[in-house]
Amino acid sequence: MKICHKYRVPIVPFSGGTSLEGHFIQTRNGITIDFRNMGEIIQLHQDDLDVVVQPAVGWELLNEYLEQYGLFFPPDPGPGAEIGGMIGTGCSGTNAARYGTMREWVLSLTVVLADGTIVKTRQRPRKSSAGYNLTNLIIGSEGTLGIVTEATLKLAVLPQETSVAVASFPSVKQATQAVQEIVRKGIPVAAVELLDKEMMKCINAAGQTSRDWREEHTLFFKFGGTPNGVKEQIKETRNVVKQFGSKSFEFAKSQTEREELWEARKEALWSTLAMGGDNDSCWTTDVAVPVSRLSEVVSETRADMDRSGILGTIVGHVGDGNFHAFILYNDTNKHIAEGIVHRLVERAIAMEGTCTGEHGVGMVKRPYLETELGKEAVDMMRRLKLALDPLRLLNADKVC
Amino acid sequence: MKICHKYRVPIVPFSGGTSLEGHFIQTRNGITIDFRNMGEIIQLHQDDLDVVVQPAVGWELLNEYLEQYGLFFPPDPGPGAEIGGMIGTGCSGTNAARYGTMREWVLSLTVVLADGTIVKTRQRPRKSSAGYNLTNLIIGSEGTLGIVTEATLKLAVLPQETSVAVASFPSVKQATQAVQEIVRKGIPVAAVELLDKEMMKCINAAGQTSRDWREEHTLFFKFGGTPNGVKEQIKETRNVVKQFGSKSFEFAKSQTEREELWEARKEALWSTLAMGGDNDSCWTTDVAVPVSRLSEVVSETRADMDRSGILGTIVGHVGDGNFHAFILYNDTNKHIAEGIVHRLVERAIAMEGTCTGEHGVGMVKRPYLETELGKEAVDMMRRLKLALDPLRLLNADKVC
Repeated sequence: MKICHKYRVPIVPFSGGTSLEGHFIQTRNGITIDFRNMGEIIQLHQDDLDVVVQPAVGWELLNEYLEQYGLFFPPDPGPGAEIGGMIGTGCSGTNAARYGTMREWVLSLTVVLADGTIVKTRQRPRKSSAGYNLTNLIIGSEGTLGIVTEATLKLAVLPQETSVAVASFPSVKQATQAVQEIVRKGIPVAAVELLDKEMMKCINAAGQTSRDWREEHTLFFKFGGTPNGVKEQIKETRNVVKQFGSKSFEFAKSQTEREELWEARKEALWSTLAMGGDNDSCWTTDVAVPVSRLSEVVSETRADMDRSGILGTIVGHVGDGNFHAFILYNDTNKHIAEGIVHRLVERAIAMEGTCTGEHGVGMVKRPYLETELGKEAVDMMRRLKLALDPLRLLNADKVC
Repeated sequence: MKICHKYRVPIVPFSGGTSLEGHFIQTRNGITIDFRNMGEIIQLHQDDLDVVVQPAVGWELLNEYLEQYGLFFPPDPGPGAEIGGMIGTGCSGTNAARYGTMREWVLSLTVVLADGTIVKTRQRPRKSSAGYNLTNLIIGSEGTLGIVTEATLKLAVLPQETSVAVASFPSVKQATQAVQEIVRKGIPVAAVELLDKEMMKCINAAGQTSRDWREEHTLFFKFGGTPNGVKEQIKETRNVVKQFGSKSFEFAKSQTEREELWEARKEALWSTLAMGGDNDSCWTTDVAVPVSRLSEVVSETRADMDRSGILGTIVGHVGDGNFHAFILYNDTNKHIAEGIVHRLVERAIAMEGTCTGEHGVGMVKRPYLETELGKEAVDMMRRLKLALDPLRLLNADKVC
């Protein structure tokens, strides 16, 4: 059992998959936070569509629990992520196109500040204008302002009907233009994900899905709503992808087909990893741009990776203008991977975008915050940090 | 022309309907902010579904402008409200049931801090995890942390089809229970508004609508979506209201009928005002509770107003558990109105609710912030205030 004495520990912002078992944190005024027991679902308020949970509850487990009540928690980042880490990074996932990010799905937090003060940021109503938005100040602060010990989450009602569709395109430009048109028309797709040609090749090569895929730039769609609503969404989406030169359009007619068609999306990261050798690591990064710049930023990034001589794949929550690059590297060519990432971030910022859409700033992207937002905004963040944690004890030297 | 010297002016948080013409604010480092020219729509990014505006743009004018592009800005508070005031209070309106509040519809702000620093809180992508959420710290801060000079707002695509329906109920309990069921079932109504029996009586008495109304507790619904989607929503809503004893259910079959049916909702405040004499004032207040407590809080408030002997009406954005009370009073019976308001606030807080769902804290509700959130949360707000405005120059003695 590891006791983290006082503050001078790098407070883990409960990031995806991190087990907190055996972790204690003792605050200056003697309160001990015991994270061994931080994996409880405390209370479901079925009629209010909210649930109170502890930070080490995983979003997948939470959704398994909620299914029996016909409810779900929309943010769906990588497998294994826990609510605390999702709050820390202000993450999202594939459902963000329809449902938004963590910032929209947390009602209230219990937070331990650096001086040991315990703050409950808000009561439970869906709406409140009572004072400063402390909840949203903590979301995305990466453990630098306080330690979250409890969260009240908003829930959504499971749609009556869901479906999945897949469309492949001759070029990244046509695929991303189709996405821009879907956004502009307001077709309420639950998710729209881009897997580029290299990604589709990796998925076939890894052979972890039950079928083979066209090795083309591919869009994966999720639909949800009433039965007629879903039919209408599929019809409108089919029209748009056709207009932008899609070579194929398949949609699921059963639960089995839904799972089969979504399999490739689920296997994206693992398939890229499977292409690496024993000495290879995978650099995962993300940026976001206004949707009108999506085509440009993805095309330029694809070309940059092709020129580099190392394997890079692109997977995107493109309905939000957000995408990930997965880059395989080793000790010999790490500088090439770094070059791709830094050029990607600079490219996104130059297009009025952000250095991170859902992963957070951490250490690597810290120097870019000033490029993106200006010295004044970063200084404002530092003033807030120092107001709440003057000794810089919580997750020091991160974010700002 | 009025020059506001330095900071010691009550900085108007651009509240609804306030004309800013002729207002200047001079910051300590000599920057003069000229609010005469703060009513411009600066740039529409049609493909990104966002628009850059100045704070004195009214939401109704903005939506008139956006209609030609098939777009709209969802938050719809009282007539005359301007974007700056809507940011100041973190307001919402009838559309919040479907679309959420200002907190969800502002991408980025340009803010002048108390020391004259100009901060742009964020770039334009739909999604970002880059640093602390400065945008949402400013929204709802009622002008106490900085002065907003520009805002980038998210926009929604106008639904293909819209409709309106009206259902009346024998009791407040049945009406609110129907709302709870609609929320629980996840029927995606764009708005669901309660006008209580007293309110409907005032509307008939004021005679400002083109028809007479049943003097019963009444729910007004707005629907939006594809033609089939709207039909489905109306059908499901009709089933629910019937199940909870609705005596009538009418829905609009044309644009004219839509406007006619929504007229009563639009005339609510004016109709209550029309019932007052020359010496009467109208106290407008709001609270919000978790939806499961709605029936209880509205019933108890109705009974309290009935006992008081003065006229009070209830109008609610009940889909969010949020409602307003309009209370007529004069110099003689002001203490009775105060009593109703204070009991209402205490009742809502005791039900895990908030002292204000969309109006903000200001001065009257300031003592309740600690009751609602605890001393620790209010102290945290004060630390943030002092970090950004150590001399308490901006809208002093408000909020926290």
